[in-house]
Amino acid sequence: MDYVNGPGRNHLFVPGPVNIPDQVIRAMNRNNEDHRSPAVPALTKTLLEDVKKIFKTTSGTPFLIPTTGTGAWESALTNTLSPGDRIVSFLIGQFSLLWIDQQQRLKFNVDVVESEWGQGANLEILEEKLAADRSHTIKAICIVHNETATGVTNNLAKVRKLLDEYQHPALLLVDGVSSICALDFRMDEWGIDVALTGSQKALSLPTGMGIVCASPKALEAAKTAKSLRVFFDWNDYLTFYKLGTFWPYTPSIQLLYGLRAALDLIFEEGLENVIARHKRLGKATRLAVEAWGLKNCTQKEEWYSDTVTAVVVPPHIDSTQIVRRAWKRYNMSLGLGLNKVAGKVFRIGHIGHLNECQLLGCLAGVEMILKDVGYPIKLGSGVGAACAYLQNNIPLIPSRI
Amino acid sequence: MDYVNGPGRNHLFVPGPVNIPDQVIRAMNRNNEDHRSPAVPALTKTLLEDVKKIFKTTSGTPFLIPTTGTGAWESALTNTLSPGDRIVSFLIGQFSLLWIDQQQRLKFNVDVVESEWGQGANLEILEEKLAADRSHTIKAICIVHNETATGVTNNLAKVRKLLDEYQHPALLLVDGVSSICALDFRMDEWGIDVALTGSQKALSLPTGMGIVCASPKALEAAKTAKSLRVFFDWNDYLTFYKLGTFWPYTPSIQLLYGLRAALDLIFEEGLENVIARHKRLGKATRLAVEAWGLKNCTQKEEWYSDTVTAVVVPPHIDSTQIVRRAWKRYNMSLGLGLNKVAGKVFRIGHIGHLNECQLLGCLAGVEMILKDVGYPIKLGSGVGAACAYLQNNIPLIPSRI
Amino acid sequence: MDYVNGPGRNHLFVPGPVNIPDQVIRAMNRNNEDHRSPAVPALTKTLLEDVKKIFKTTSGTPFLIPTTGTGAWESALTNTLSPGDRIVSFLIGQFSLLWIDQQQRLKFNVDVVESEWGQGANLEILEEKLAADRSHTIKAICIVHNETATGVTNNLAKVRKLLDEYQHPALLLVDGVSSICALDFRMDEWGIDVALTGSQKALSLPTGMGIVCASPKALEAAKTAKSLRVFFDWNDYLTFYKLGTFWPYTPSIQLLYGLRAALDLIFEEGLENVIARHKRLGKATRLAVEAWGLKNCTQKEEWYSDTVTAVVVPPHIDSTQIVRRAWKRYNMSLGLGLNKVAGKVFRIGHIGHLNECQLLGCLAGVEMILKDVGYPIKLGSGVGAACAYLQNNIPLIPSRI
Amino acid sequence: MDYVNGPGRNHLFVPGPVNIPDQVIRAMNRNNEDHRSPAVPALTKTLLEDVKKIFKTTSGTPFLIPTTGTGAWESALTNTLSPGDRIVSFLIGQFSLLWIDQQQRLKFNVDVVESEWGQGANLEILEEKLAADRSHTIKAICIVHNETATGVTNNLAKVRKLLDEYQHPALLLVDGVSSICALDFRMDEWGIDVALTGSQKALSLPTGMGIVCASPKALEAAKTAKSLRVFFDWNDYLTFYKLGTFWPYTPSIQLLYGLRAALDLIFEEGLENVIARHKRLGKATRLAVEAWGLKNCTQKEEWYSDTVTAVVVPPHIDSTQIVRRAWKRYNMSLGLGLNKVAGKVFRIGHIGHLNECQLLGCLAGVEMILKDVGYPIKLGSGVGAACAYLQNNIPLIPSRI
Repeated sequence: MDYVNGPGRNHLFVPGPVNIPDQVIRAMNRNNEDHRSPAVPALTKTLLEDVKKIFKTTSGTPFLIPTTGTGAWESALTNTLSPGDRIVSFLIGQFSLLWIDQQQRLKFNVDVVESEWGQGANLEILEEKLAADRSHTIKAICIVHNETATGVTNNLAKVRKLLDEYQHPALLLVDGVSSICALDFRMDEWGIDVALTGSQKALSLPTGMGIVCASPKALEAAKTAKSLRVFFDWNDYLTFYKLGTFWPYTPSIQLLYGLRAALDLIFEEGLENVIARHKRLGKATRLAVEAWGLKNCTQKEEWYSDTVTAVVVPPHIDSTQIVRRAWKRYNMSLGLGLNKVAGKVFRIGHIGHLNECQLLGCLAGVEMILKDVGYPIKLGSGVGAACAYLQNNIPLIPSRI
Repeated sequence: MDYVNGPGRNHLFVPGPVNIPDQVIRAMNRNNEDHRSPAVPALTKTLLEDVKKIFKTTSGTPFLIPTTGTGAWESALTNTLSPGDRIVSFLIGQFSLLWIDQQQRLKFNVDVVESEWGQGANLEILEEKLAADRSHTIKAICIVHNETATGVTNNLAKVRKLLDEYQHPALLLVDGVSSICALDFRMDEWGIDVALTGSQKALSLPTGMGIVCASPKALEAAKTAKSLRVFFDWNDYLTFYKLGTFWPYTPSIQLLYGLRAALDLIFEEGLENVIARHKRLGKATRLAVEAWGLKNCTQKEEWYSDTVTAVVVPPHIDSTQIVRRAWKRYNMSLGLGLNKVAGKVFRIGHIGHLNECQLLGCLAGVEMILKDVGYPIKLGSGVGAACAYLQNNIPLIPSRI
Repeated sequence: MDYVNGPGRNHLFVPGPVNIPDQVIRAMNRNNEDHRSPAVPALTKTLLEDVKKIFKTTSGTPFLIPTTGTGAWESALTNTLSPGDRIVSFLIGQFSLLWIDQQQRLKFNVDVVESEWGQGANLEILEEKLAADRSHTIKAICIVHNETATGVTNNLAKVRKLLDEYQHPALLLVDGVSSICALDFRMDEWGIDVALTGSQKALSLPTGMGIVCASPKALEAAKTAKSLRVFFDWNDYLTFYKLGTFWPYTPSIQLLYGLRAALDLIFEEGLENVIARHKRLGKATRLAVEAWGLKNCTQKEEWYSDTVTAVVVPPHIDSTQIVRRAWKRYNMSLGLGLNKVAGKVFRIGHIGHLNECQLLGCLAGVEMILKDVGYPIKLGSGVGAACAYLQNNIPLIPSRI
Repeated sequence: MDYVNGPGRNHLFVPGPVNIPDQVIRAMNRNNEDHRSPAVPALTKTLLEDVKKIFKTTSGTPFLIPTTGTGAWESALTNTLSPGDRIVSFLIGQFSLLWIDQQQRLKFNVDVVESEWGQGANLEILEEKLAADRSHTIKAICIVHNETATGVTNNLAKVRKLLDEYQHPALLLVDGVSSICALDFRMDEWGIDVALTGSQKALSLPTGMGIVCASPKALEAAKTAKSLRVFFDWNDYLTFYKLGTFWPYTPSIQLLYGLRAALDLIFEEGLENVIARHKRLGKATRLAVEAWGLKNCTQKEEWYSDTVTAVVVPPHIDSTQIVRRAWKRYNMSLGLGLNKVAGKVFRIGHIGHLNECQLLGCLAGVEMILKDVGYPIKLGSGVGAACAYLQNNIPLIPSRI
C-alpha cells in the first residue's frame, strides 16, 4: 500500500501537512468510540478550553470543525457576513488568492488589495480605504497572517492599529493556517474577530480539523449573518455546547485524542519555546539560503516567515525540477512554487514538530540537489552558516538537564 | 488520556461510528505525507475507481470530501439545486429530520412527507405528488435509504419505479449513510443521482470522509445549480481530477490509506458476503428481540433494517437508563433513542466490521441490562434464539477452509 | 500479510497469548530508543519497583528477561541449583511435564510426583518426602501454580505450610505463568523463592519478556549455584542494577513501555479487582460448562482454575475438531487438548484483558460449535447460566459511576 | 510515559537498536494471536525461507529465537560445543570481549587472540595456531564480523581461506550482529557454520529476536554437543519444524509480522542495494571525520566498518560529554566509548533503516557538539565533504523514477 517506498525516513519539508509527533500518532492509533458516551464530551471540554491558549485568547469561542483550512475559511466568512457585504482582502500569494476566490464565489463584494508576490499586505492602501470609509461600508478585513506560497508574514498588530485609529468597526478575519502555534499570534491583543488554522499545520496533526476561533463580536455577527450555511454553522455548535454534548454531528474520535496529545506536547515544551524554535529554524534557513547565494522570495526582512521559506532559483533553473529531484533521489518533500512563482521558487517548510538537526539534514539535501541541477554551490556552505547560528542559540532540552 | 477506562474491550454497538478493523487502524498509523507528491494521486486514483464498486455504479463520479455525513448532505444538495427549488423529502426519524432541517435552512422549498416514526417513507403520497406534478416543479426527491434512528429501510427500487412510471425528471438524492456497503445498494440500477455515506459507518473507518457519488445527470445539474458553495463544490474536484492531482485542498493522508485498506478488506470478503453478513446480524438481532418479548420499533417486516435495530422498551422503563447502564457496568455502547423516541427505544447497531460472536456478546449483555432495569427476561433466551438461526447460516471463512 | 482474515474481530480465548489492551498496543507503537540514554533506566526503575506488586513481594528482586516462559523456567533453575541437585517436581499436565523435561535435561535429579491429569499436585506425597528427608537432600520443590493444560490450580499456601511444618530448607520454585496477575498470588506470604511469569499471559502484553522474581534466599543460592549460565545469569543483572543502567544487554524498548502501560492499567483497575474479575470469568465459564452437561477436566472444586477451563467432550467427539471449527467458522481461537488429553478436551482461556460480555460472546460461539459437531446442546443454556451469575456480580466501572 | 521528550524527532545514531521503518512499526501494531492457529506456521514458513537470503545461505537452517544477541551467542556455542572444548576467539573490542567472557563462563577452553582496540582480528596468529594444531584440538573459531565497539570489520573470507589451507575442521562461529543485512556477508561462500544477528540491528526491528543460522556441519555437531541447554536447544526447534508447527514455545506474534515487513522492505530495495547504501553511509561518515581533522578509531582502511564509526576525540576532550550533550541539546543519540576506549571515542551508528540526509543531519549535529565542547571545528566542513561524495553516488529511488 505504500506505492513508492524509499530507503530511510521521508524528509517532509512542505509547509503542511507536517511531521506528526510519535506521541500523537500513538494517541490516534485507536478504534472508534461512541461520541455520545460521557467520555467524549469530557475530552472535548478540555480541548475547547486548551485550544484557546494557542490562539492567545480568553474571550474567543473555538470550533473544532471536521474540515480543512478551506472549510475553516468558509466557516469564518459565512458565519459573520451576508452576501453583498464589502470585504477588503489582500492578495499576496496563492493562498490569499484562493481565499479571495472563495469570497467572490460566496458573493461578497471583495475589494482586493494586491501586492507583488513576495511582498506583504499593502497596509498603506488599507489605511486609505479605512480613512475613506466613513460610512463603514467595509464589513470585514480578510488577511492571511502568513502567506504559505511566498513565505510572507503580515503585521497583524499594525492592521489592528489602523482599525483602531480610524475607529473602524470592520471585522478582522485572519487566516492563521501557517502561523498559529508556530508564529507569535495574539488573537485578543490584536483584536482579531475570527482566527483559524488547520490541524495539519503547526499543530502537527493529520488533516481533518479546521480550528476556528470567534470573538464575541464575531459571535454577535453570526446572529444576523445571512449567508446560508448548515454544516459550517456556529450556531449549531453553540446549541450543543449548551447541551454539554458539544457535537452537532460526529467528530473524528482519533483527531480528538490526537489534538489532546498535540496540545499536551506543546504545553510541555511551552508555547513560547515552540515559537522561539520556529524563529531559530526560520533564521537558520534564511542564513543557509544567503550562504548559497540565492534570494529569498520575501522581499523585506519585516515579512520574513519563520514557518516557510520560498527560495528563488536562478532563471535558467526550473524549481519544479528541484522538488522532483528531492523526491526521486533524496526521499525529501519540498514545496513547489505555485501559480505566479511556479518554476521560480521552491519552498522549505520549517513548521510543526521539527528540530534543528532535522532541518540541517534537509538543508544538506537541498545543497546536493542544487548541485544536481547545475547550480554552482559550495557544498556545506549553507549548513555551516546555519550551524554557526544554531550552535549559539539552541537551548538545552529542559526535561533532560 | 483515556478518561474512563473499563476492563476489557469496549463493546461498540452504536450504529456509527463503528468498529475499525485492525488492518485499517494499522494502515492509518502513519506520519503525514506531501499530498502533492506523485504517491498521493496514484493512491487516490485507485480509491476513486474502487469506491464506485461499493455504490454499484460504473457511470457515477465519486468525491471523497473531508467532512462528515452532514457535509455530504450539503454537498449533495448545493451542487444540484438552487435556492427555492422544490424538493420532496421524507421525514421518518431523527436523521431524515435533520436533513430536512438542512434543506430548509439552505432555502429549498421542502415538501415534507412525514410518517410515524417506525414506518418507512410514504410512497403512496410520493406517487400522488408525482402524478400531480405534470409541470415538473419537483426538482428532487430526498430520501434516506436507512433511517438510523428507527432502523427503517426504505424501498429505493420502488421510488425509482414511481419516477419512471410518471416519467418524472426529478433528481433522486439518497442518504446511504447507514446502508451503503452494508445493505444491498444499487446506484445505477435504481437510477440514484446522488448517493452518499460517511467513512465511520459501514466502511468502518474513522469519521472524516464524506463519500458522495454523482450520476452524470447530477453532474449536469451541478453546472447550473445556483446554491452558493466553495468547499463542497464538485467542480473544484473535477478541475483537479482533470489535472491528475485530484485534490483541491489537503486530504487526510491517513484516511486515504485507511480507505485503501478498508476497500481491500471488503473486496477480500466480497461485497455480497459483506451484505449477507449484515443480513445475518440483522436477522439474529430481531430474533433475540422477539425472544425477549420486546417490540422492534420498525413496524413492518418490509422496513426491517439489517444495520440497526431500535428496540422498544415497556412504558415503565426508560431506555436512556439501559444505554447508561450498558456503559457504566458492561463497557458497552448502545444507541440512545432520539427525539420522538427518546426514552422509548434503545438501539443496537450491527453495522460494519463485526461478526456473529461479537453480536452475541452484545445480546448477552443486553439481556443482563434488561434484567438490571427490572424487565422480566429469561436470561439466554435471546442469545439462544439468535444462535439457533446463526448456527444454521454462518458460512465457513473462505481463507481458512 | 494477514494470511487468513476473517470478518470482524478474532475472538482470542487461548490461555495465552491473550488480548492486549489498546492502551498497551498504543504504548508499544514506537520507534527504537537508545537503551543507554538516561530515559531507559529511569523507566526501568519504575518497572522493577512496580512489578513486585503483582507478585505481592517487597523483599523479592525482579528480573525482566528478554525470553519466554521456558527461558524464565531455565533462569529459575540454573540460578539456584547445581547439576545433580535433587528436586521434587509435580507432573500434572503438559506444562509441568515440559518443565520437568527441562529439569532433567539440565541434569538435576528430579523426583517426579505424578497425578492423574485433571488433579492437582499430590501434596500428601510431598509431605511423605519432606518427612523422610531429614538430611535435606531435597534442594528445591518445583510446582506450577496453575497448570494451563488442564485448568488446575495448586494450593501453594499448603506447600509452604508443609515446608514450614517439617522445617525443610528446600527452595520453592513456582511457575506462575498462567496465574500471576490473574489469580491470588502471594510471593512473600507463601515464602516462594522464585516465581515467574511471561508477558503474554495475565499481563496482557506480547510474548518476549520472562518476568522472574527471586527471594533473598534465592539470590543467596545464586551465589553458589553451579549450573552454567550466562544469558540467564541473575548476577549480570545485579551488576547492572548497581550501576544504575539496569541492562546487561539490549532490552525491547517497546516491551518496557508496554509493561509500563500494562501496570498502569492494572493498578488503575486495582489488582484485587483484576483477580475478582478473573474469579467471575472462571465461575461463569464453569456454570456454562455445567449447563451444557459437559464435564470440567479439573476433578475437584479446590483445583478449579479461574484463568483456563479445560472442557471434556463426550468420547465420540474429537475436541480437535471443535478448535478447528472455532477458527474456520467463528473466527475464534480456543485451546487444544495437549498430549494425554489431546482430542479429549478443548480449553477456554479466560485470562488477561477481558470482560464479561467478551466471554459471553465466546460461550455463545462454543454453543454453536458444539451443535456443529453433533453434541445435543440447548442453545443459550450456557450463556443463560453464566449471565444469571454475572448479572448479580459484575460491579460498576468505578471511573464511570 | 515519555519521560524526557525533546522537540522534533530523536536522531537515533547508536549502532543498535536502530530506527524502525514505519511499515514495520505498522505491521507490529496488533493484538496477539494464537500461535497454534494455522496462520502462524504459514507465516513462519515464509520467514524461515526468506531469512536465509540475508545470510546468503541455501544450506543453512535458521532459528528465530526469542532472545537477544547475547542469547544468540549462547545458542551458537552450546549447540555446537561441549565444556572443555578448545576455541580460538579474537578479542578486539567490548563485544568480542563479552562473547569471550561468555565462552569462558560456559567452560570452554578459550584461546584468546587479542588485538589492540581499533585493529582487526590477528589472522597471522590464527594461521600459526592452525598450522600448529595438527591434531585438531581447536574445535571452533569464534569471531565477530564487525566489532561494534570500535567499528572494525574482520575479513571472514580470509579466515575461511586459512581454515581451508590447513584443512582444519574447526567450526567457524561468527557474530554478525552489526553486519548481517548491512555488510557483505556470505555464509555459504565463506563456509560459516553458525552465523547470528539480533533483530534490533540491520533488520531494523525491535529487540527480541536472535536470528541464528546453522550449517549442516553445525547441525551435525549439535547432535553430540554436551553443553546443557533447553531454551536454546536447536533440537527442540527441529522437532517442531518437522511437525510443521515450528515453535517449541510461544513466539512474539508482533515480531513475526514485523520480520515479514522488514524482509519485504529489504527485498523491495534489494539486498545488494541495502549493502551499497551502508557503504555510502560509512564512506560519507569517514570523509566527515577526516574533514573535521579527527581520527577514526579503526586503524587501517581494510577494517573500516560501514555500519559504525568510532571517532577518536583529542585527549583534552571527554567523549562522554559529547554523547551527553547530543542527548541534552540536540535530541540525538550517539554511541558511548566502551571499556578501554571509554571517554576516548564516541560512535556514530550508520546501520539499518537510514538514508543519506538523515546521516547528514546527524553529522551537522556532531559538528555543533564538537564546537560546544571546545574542539576548533569549521562548521559545515564534515557535511560538505560527505555531500561531495554522496551527491556523486546516491542512486535514484527505483520506484520513483
